[in-house]
Amino acid sequence: MTYTAPQGDTLVARFVQARGLTAALAAPLSDADASVQPMPDASPAKWHLAHVTWFFETFVLRDHVPGYAAYDDRFAFLFNSYYEAEGARHPRDRRGMLTRPSLDEILAWRAHVDAAVAAALPGLSDAARTLVELGIHHEQQHQELLLTDILNLFGENPLVPSVWDRPRNVPAQVPAPVRWIEGRSGIVEIGHDGDGFSFDCEGPRHSALLHPHALADRPITTAEYRGFVDDGGYADPRHWLADGWAWVKANAIEAPLYWRRQEDGWRAFALDGLHPLHPAAPVTHVSYYEADAFARWAGARLPTEAEWESAAATLDPSAGNFLDEAGPVRPRAAPAGTGLRQMFGDVWEWTGSAYLPFPGFRPAEGAVGEYNGKFMSGQFVLRGGSCATPRGHVRASYRNFFYPHQRWQFTGIRLAKDL
Amino acid sequence: MTYTAPQGDTLVARFVQARGLTAALAAPLSDADASVQPMPDASPAKWHLAHVTWFFETFVLRDHVPGYAAYDDRFAFLFNSYYEAEGARHPRDRRGMLTRPSLDEILAWRAHVDAAVAAALPGLSDAARTLVELGIHHEQQHQELLLTDILNLFGENPLVPSVWDRPRNVPAQVPAPVRWIEGRSGIVEIGHDGDGFSFDCEGPRHSALLHPHALADRPITTAEYRGFVDDGGYADPRHWLADGWAWVKANAIEAPLYWRRQEDGWRAFALDGLHPLHPAAPVTHVSYYEADAFARWAGARLPTEAEWESAAATLDPSAGNFLDEAGPVRPRAAPAGTGLRQMFGDVWEWTGSAYLPFPGFRPAEGAVGEYNGKFMSGQFVLRGGSCATPRGHVRASYRNFFYPHQRWQFTGIRLAKDL
Amino acid sequence: MTYTAPQGDTLVARFVQARGLTAALAAPLSDADASVQPMPDASPAKWHLAHVTWFFETFVLRDHVPGYAAYDDRFAFLFNSYYEAEGARHPRDRRGMLTRPSLDEILAWRAHVDAAVAAALPGLSDAARTLVELGIHHEQQHQELLLTDILNLFGENPLVPSVWDRPRNVPAQVPAPVRWIEGRSGIVEIGHDGDGFSFDCEGPRHSALLHPHALADRPITTAEYRGFVDDGGYADPRHWLADGWAWVKANAIEAPLYWRRQEDGWRAFALDGLHPLHPAAPVTHVSYYEADAFARWAGARLPTEAEWESAAATLDPSAGNFLDEAGPVRPRAAPAGTGLRQMFGDVWEWTGSAYLPFPGFRPAEGAVGEYNGKFMSGQFVLRGGSCATPRGHVRASYRNFFYPHQRWQFTGIRLAKDL
Amino acid sequence: MTYTAPQGDTLVARFVQARGLTAALAAPLSDADASVQPMPDASPAKWHLAHVTWFFETFVLRDHVPGYAAYDDRFAFLFNSYYEAEGARHPRDRRGMLTRPSLDEILAWRAHVDAAVAAALPGLSDAARTLVELGIHHEQQHQELLLTDILNLFGENPLVPSVWDRPRNVPAQVPAPVRWIEGRSGIVEIGHDGDGFSFDCEGPRHSALLHPHALADRPITTAEYRGFVDDGGYADPRHWLADGWAWVKANAIEAPLYWRRQEDGWRAFALDGLHPLHPAAPVTHVSYYEADAFARWAGARLPTEAEWESAAATLDPSAGNFLDEAGPVRPRAAPAGTGLRQMFGDVWEWTGSAYLPFPGFRPAEGAVGEYNGKFMSGQFVLRGGSCATPRGHVRASYRNFFYPHQRWQFTGIRLAKDL
Repeated sequence: MTYTAPQGDTLVARFVQARGLTAALAAPLSDADASVQPMPDASPAKWHLAHVTWFFETFVLRDHVPGYAAYDDRFAFLFNSYYEAEGARHPRDRRGMLTRPSLDEILAWRAHVDAAVAAALPGLSDAARTLVELGIHHEQQHQELLLTDILNLFGENPLVPSVWDRPRNVPAQVPAPVRWIEGRSGIVEIGHDGDGFSFDCEGPRHSALLHPHALADRPITTAEYRGFVDDGGYADPRHWLADGWAWVKANAIEAPLYWRRQEDGWRAFALDGLHPLHPAAPVTHVSYYEADAFARWAGARLPTEAEWESAAATLDPSAGNFLDEAGPVRPRAAPAGTGLRQMFGDVWEWTGSAYLPFPGFRPAEGAVGEYNGKFMSGQFVLRGGSCATPRGHVRASYRNFFYPHQRWQFTGIRLAKDL
Repeated sequence: MTYTAPQGDTLVARFVQARGLTAALAAPLSDADASVQPMPDASPAKWHLAHVTWFFETFVLRDHVPGYAAYDDRFAFLFNSYYEAEGARHPRDRRGMLTRPSLDEILAWRAHVDAAVAAALPGLSDAARTLVELGIHHEQQHQELLLTDILNLFGENPLVPSVWDRPRNVPAQVPAPVRWIEGRSGIVEIGHDGDGFSFDCEGPRHSALLHPHALADRPITTAEYRGFVDDGGYADPRHWLADGWAWVKANAIEAPLYWRRQEDGWRAFALDGLHPLHPAAPVTHVSYYEADAFARWAGARLPTEAEWESAAATLDPSAGNFLDEAGPVRPRAAPAGTGLRQMFGDVWEWTGSAYLPFPGFRPAEGAVGEYNGKFMSGQFVLRGGSCATPRGHVRASYRNFFYPHQRWQFTGIRLAKDL
Repeated sequence: MTYTAPQGDTLVARFVQARGLTAALAAPLSDADASVQPMPDASPAKWHLAHVTWFFETFVLRDHVPGYAAYDDRFAFLFNSYYEAEGARHPRDRRGMLTRPSLDEILAWRAHVDAAVAAALPGLSDAARTLVELGIHHEQQHQELLLTDILNLFGENPLVPSVWDRPRNVPAQVPAPVRWIEGRSGIVEIGHDGDGFSFDCEGPRHSALLHPHALADRPITTAEYRGFVDDGGYADPRHWLADGWAWVKANAIEAPLYWRRQEDGWRAFALDGLHPLHPAAPVTHVSYYEADAFARWAGARLPTEAEWESAAATLDPSAGNFLDEAGPVRPRAAPAGTGLRQMFGDVWEWTGSAYLPFPGFRPAEGAVGEYNGKFMSGQFVLRGGSCATPRGHVRASYRNFFYPHQRWQFTGIRLAKDL
Repeated sequence: MTYTAPQGDTLVARFVQARGLTAALAAPLSDADASVQPMPDASPAKWHLAHVTWFFETFVLRDHVPGYAAYDDRFAFLFNSYYEAEGARHPRDRRGMLTRPSLDEILAWRAHVDAAVAAALPGLSDAARTLVELGIHHEQQHQELLLTDILNLFGENPLVPSVWDRPRNVPAQVPAPVRWIEGRSGIVEIGHDGDGFSFDCEGPRHSALLHPHALADRPITTAEYRGFVDDGGYADPRHWLADGWAWVKANAIEAPLYWRRQEDGWRAFALDGLHPLHPAAPVTHVSYYEADAFARWAGARLPTEAEWESAAATLDPSAGNFLDEAGPVRPRAAPAGTGLRQMFGDVWEWTGSAYLPFPGFRPAEGAVGEYNGKFMSGQFVLRGGSCATPRGHVRASYRNFFYPHQRWQFTGIRLAKDL
């Protein structure tokens, strides 16, 4: 990052706000809820709470605040995630074994680190302030993961508990059929321009060549996706990538992740429990394989990330349905209107682009630089953020990435086509 | 069981005592401690607390108390263990997903069922009283599992937490070398004689033929077992069964389960945390493969279960080191003296006998009868109970059984030899 | 073995006969047939041909014939099976990778070793002659495995090829219902008495105690077993051991190994190809789990090995349906008559006895002594030999052993019951 | 394909030549060599021989030659590869079970189909001729796989047999250090232009935008790669992608696939057996993970496929070291000279581009169209062909693709860097 964090009280305020939101998200969780790991891809909520705290304690307090002593020397081993340069760490798939320290102890550690960072912030160097900024963005990433991982855990419970009882979704008009919005073609500039914070993989800004194409004006709805299900989409290999078809067969996949077939029809599990499908809302919790198969079935394709970013560049990221406060976030039906809607927020949109370095990419140096570059094989890029992404976190250049079979994030589908 | 439970207040008192001990064992556990499943063989403490309660609610209250309504209809699916006749149930290896109901909710359910059983007991039929008796013994089995499963969970935590801080073990004299006690030979009677409670697999009582043999007067100590370790016992295939050798290689086994190699030597993890080895105490947490390999290395063998039972028949089961109250149970050094010591308590003793039906065995009818017969393949019999077995639970005829690779119970070694 | 092989030409003749039969069994096989390994439990025919040759070359020629030079120094690594004392060896599950040496090369090696052993035999010491005897019995074991492994390989081929086209089975009268033959009770002597050859695990001879019981007069037929299948036997967990039920579910087992459900009914695959079921012949290729489940369904149990051996002791082993010459061996229908029939030959009979050492058992010293003792966990004993066992190989005391899920041998069921 | 195969005798001659080369490649193989499958990724040689024949019999003879009757109705099930539209087929990982039909029978089938195609060719429609052309290219692909799969099989044999004894490699001058050749930047046209045969995934031709960059003038040599090995490259996670590091650890990878560490240093196994490393020749049998790690260690990166194709567009594909005749192909040292060398032939060059559709890509219709599009996830593109690729098979636009862990093909490394 060449970015330098802003001066003044803004950073303190944003630090306090971010840390507070994380705590609020965890507030409904019991000690047990916060400790169990439902699958290797997901981490316990307590681990998220601790890991982001370890980040501030290590890269800000340890490295930039003279005399700061680690709150507990044993925590580094437990709560480092994947920073090889920071030494040995607890195996990822055993994170759920850590019933101690307790949730309360982790919250106490958080409070201690919060106070120390807040006290130190006014005197920190620009380098350290920039690490605080990075830490806030890192915290936001884990806020989203905390929500999706808790959803995954509760989805394993036959009692279908809800994290928040108050349902968020309200009946909505099923949107008009998809309309196609022609995109720019020729050479465009994409990638982060260095103005404001970004992750290393978003840059450098560079020219990209777009071929004539159009994007759908909104994401695919649950009702539209159900058409694919009802049409036998999961039983016809012609729609599927070979790896996707093998995944469908090996796991007996027949619908998006949290759909449950009941005697009276499909229901979907969400942070507010088990409810009927919302036909008007964007379909979510689909894998790349499903997104690609749906697109093929629909006679379309997924957008490339350059097409997506080019279209998104002039839109306001903050206008979307994002995470603002603790509660049962869910994708919302497309608003009425014309033009591209819901590019930001609601659901992460699978692109057809593999997650690879932009031309001229150089990873940041040091442990913090392990951050993104080493995941550049086998994954696909998603764009735009979701209803579980903290507002303000994403940008037009923001690149998320997951393996094509993963679907426990709020992932959805926007179609594209060649012109 | 043809056994009929005793009349009078004894049963109520024993029911109250047993249920209270279970609660006391779980008292040091947090909600998270009680919810996490460290491996498929072990269950969360909360599951144990719930499952034994389900047993009383189902087989006593539901079946024998008119008008009793289930506390929560959803619990049967969650907390049935393996009673096929009782219908579908939650998969065993997903028991750790149940962060809800919480520990407090399960404890409340326990209190409700305790009150209902205590209230009903005076008026129960003999059949129902016998099921209460069975439930108490069942509860005792799960008390032991609760302890060994918590130990296993805490053993997965790099922080090596202790369940109880107060160490129980005290320095002890290393016992004199093993002496051989000749056993009876010829025809003996073994198996439960029907006087008092027993599990179905302990009978029928029958004659067995013993060949001339002797038993070691005490279990193998940690110091003796360490001799096997130091002699390269884990690196020499000649000592091992073929399956055992494959297990050693595949899992890089080099010592008993909870031994940890540290810079300054071996330590062992127990319910009171990580401590130096206790040379005088019986070695524990060894698999059948290890017990058999040790015996072969020592030029001896394991006893048969008939040899063991014949020798134990005239000893007092209640004299051993058993679980009396909540606390960090551990095997104790052999007391001074001559003759067979520590046959009961301290460590379960692996026998060389496969767990198979006694001549004339007939499983009990109905769901309760699924209990033991269906596990009669691939497992070996252990005898005598351990420091984690509730006092009063075992008898000379008591048959425990585990697969030869399992060692998270308090399992140890007593040698035998042919004469 | 304390046994000493007989003097004179008998041993030469038997050596020549045994080696010749092996070659005849392999004669219908192509180089490819002889090289492929269908599953880790089974070995390629070429490997069998080589391994038994390695045995003679190593333990007889190398150790007892001065100046004998190994035919090819590289073969020891390839064709040792599990003799840890003989050093490193090719992994068992990669035996099918050895397309070189070719079948013809192995046959040339066989011829070389045959000639060397035959030439040396007249001058060999008693110790060496005894090893030749052991080698012959070892060869016979691999003759049976060669047949069952080839059957397994051909069973994987959608073309259902037959090893021998000439069908062996002929229509036969369905036998009369099972009659029960009371066995001896009280103390009996079992185990090999040291007169003639035996494997170490057959001894020592010892007294055993039999409880009142009866054995079925003949094995269960295919028609009787089909009654279990048609009655939903594979869908009802009450008939099954817990491990067996897990095995049925995990592998979608619904019939004996080589039964194939076709549009017009069941067929069975055998060495002579795919044919309709033979209702009158003993059911074969069933696992212990299936044998035990059938017995439970039938209200009976499996015999113990002592019951079996006691009953078999006075019968003539050589009277059975055994392997005499190369061809499509199959179990035959029970002959008319009364009394115990088919105790020897036709199908190995699962007993309910775990494979464990007899009282006083001591393994033979040295590499050859690794032979049997190290397999004594987790397996069950089978008795009596099968249609694929070379005539003369088995005795009343002969103990075969397999894991309870294995069924690619000619394994069948004889019922027993308590009296 | 819009491509139409040429008129006249050329196609017959090329058909005969291609079919003949396949047979010549298989000539050194025994029936067993041709039948065994060394791993699920590789197929038996016999399967390759049969599958390409099935292709001609199905798509040319069955579909375009009236009255043609299938040689054997059972072969379609056995030798279809992955054409879902063509119905059920034998599972890929069980291809090695097919010891029948024999190699000779498959060769007879080949002869039959060869004669039928040759006889029919003069009268075939353009559509059918185009399928013959496709079949020839398909055959060429399987010629390469036949070689690499046989190499893999022989590499599993402790006897390290050679397919051809006559070594092909000769001592060569170690080439001068890598020099950087600047590539074009700006908009270039890539993809197949429709003139001559191509696979569907090579088109459509389209403009691509290149950023300033340079390519290494030759592939990385074995000596250079050994520098990475000797520098501890396999022990330092900083060089590796996260998935690559996990692969290294899980499989204990420490060198390219066929390197064998011997007491006197590294050797490499090849089609002519085990030999010392060839320092001057391009390193081969490296995975994408290794190629990427080497590039990172060397301070460079892998080329994109557009950079590669742009540079290759004006080079003569036929000038490279390709497969011309049966024999032990191996990469050769770079010839002296300046400019880009060895772009074609020797080793497939991993690009940093994921295998994804070109802009405007449309899969061909029907069964033949399943060919390429469905593999477009998780794989990387390789370019240029190898010493095992039949001469004439590749073009500048040719796209090969493998998963990043795969390395049993002749895969190598050409570096690139940003300018």
